[in-house]
Amino acid sequence: MNNYYLELCYDGSKYRGWQKLGNTENTIQGKIENTLSRLLDQTIEVNASGRTDAGVHAKKQVCSFKANTQLSDADILIGLREHLPKDIGAVSLHIANPMFHARYNCKKKTYVYRVWTGNTPNIFERNYLYFLPCQLDLESMRNAASLLCGEHDYCAFTNAKGSKKSTVRNIYSIDIQSIGDEIQFIFTGDGFLYNMVRIIVGTLIEIGQGKKSIKYINEILDSKKRENAGYLVPASGLILWDVEY
Amino acid sequence: MNNYYLELCYDGSKYRGWQKLGNTENTIQGKIENTLSRLLDQTIEVNASGRTDAGVHAKKQVCSFKANTQLSDADILIGLREHLPKDIGAVSLHIANPMFHARYNCKKKTYVYRVWTGNTPNIFERNYLYFLPCQLDLESMRNAASLLCGEHDYCAFTNAKGSKKSTVRNIYSIDIQSIGDEIQFIFTGDGFLYNMVRIIVGTLIEIGQGKKSIKYINEILDSKKRENAGYLVPASGLILWDVEY
Repeated sequence: MNNYYLELCYDGSKYRGWQKLGNTENTIQGKIENTLSRLLDQTIEVNASGRTDAGVHAKKQVCSFKANTQLSDADILIGLREHLPKDIGAVSLHIANPMFHARYNCKKKTYVYRVWTGNTPNIFERNYLYFLPCQLDLESMRNAASLLCGEHDYCAFTNAKGSKKSTVRNIYSIDIQSIGDEIQFIFTGDGFLYNMVRIIVGTLIEIGQGKKSIKYINEILDSKKRENAGYLVPASGLILWDVEY
Repeated sequence: MNNYYLELCYDGSKYRGWQKLGNTENTIQGKIENTLSRLLDQTIEVNASGRTDAGVHAKKQVCSFKANTQLSDADILIGLREHLPKDIGAVSLHIANPMFHARYNCKKKTYVYRVWTGNTPNIFERNYLYFLPCQLDLESMRNAASLLCGEHDYCAFTNAKGSKKSTVRNIYSIDIQSIGDEIQFIFTGDGFLYNMVRIIVGTLIEIGQGKKSIKYINEILDSKKRENAGYLVPASGLILWDVEY
């Protein structure tokens, strides 16, 4: 029985997210498991670095799985590339340490959220952007972002309900880059809660539009109440950019 | 009655090409004319710099049309951006010289054809590439391309049938760039025949793969026979990049 490391990328537009539900058809996990199971002629279960929500993309996602097969790594990779849908890509695959687990061993994640603030169309990247034609004040967003970095209880910044799991996470950095008509929010951290990146971006946008004041950031964190944070920006602009081990 | 200059971009994946046919529904021209006609409350006919085939994209396409309206240029542009489908973008619009005609006045066109030669997936740009995992010899393709430049009768390099129109065109340059796993073929010329860029790219690819020899290029041109040229590469990789007046 080998333990495998598999790097993937995907366009999440059509999918209900990473995690398979009752109906596995429209999830990335479902597509990967079905393809691997057919290819290796056994039931395969994969574990990703973490779930991505419906509509969210991944430039780099990593998952691990166990399988008993005579096929070489190269053959499995070729088979995946042949049989996966066009919006899911198999980047690399190799046999990993038997203890390797894509979720438990993940040390650091980077998410990028892309906002198109111009009036000019960007039709070629339309599925990977949030279109919000408006002026955003970069300096106030950057100041607010710095207050959100570090180890905090991000309970106010998640839509996860009734979970007894810890909502403490450590955000290492939030960089905000302006490139022409596009603004990119680049998050790195040890992990992110359900909808957390998108609620933080919504909060920063409200600050950048002057609708919210920076001084409330600490109050929002302390309140631990979702309704005090900003709105949930659309999934289309979010890309899991990197996962590190 | 004003004469208008309208710059567009589009993702041609879903469309049957620029030119409206009996059924206007699935053509770019049909979408533009229907949107403008509703917006300006009159029947509008547009003339583009040239047709693009089914599935071909445009980073820059220009068309002209005449209309009698009180709406300002800015209002027409806003209206177009609101009502055009997401895969067609209105870039700019202004009142042109009364004699301006997007087709007759076009001086120079640039097309880019993108080939992904690697085994690694490029899922985010999958609709704008031709996937052909193989080695291509750049030098022989560049040598062949230089023989195809200049003023020639490109009758062997078109699928246009039975037309009595001239098949003489002037290709100013064919640049071939290698960027990582991608090879770009960049054509500039005074105009291109039906399927001409895609048949030239197919011919160059066969040369780059060693299936055809460079020495036949002049014979293909002289023969004026379509069957002597290479295969037609898929529409997805072709982008009308620039049109100049």
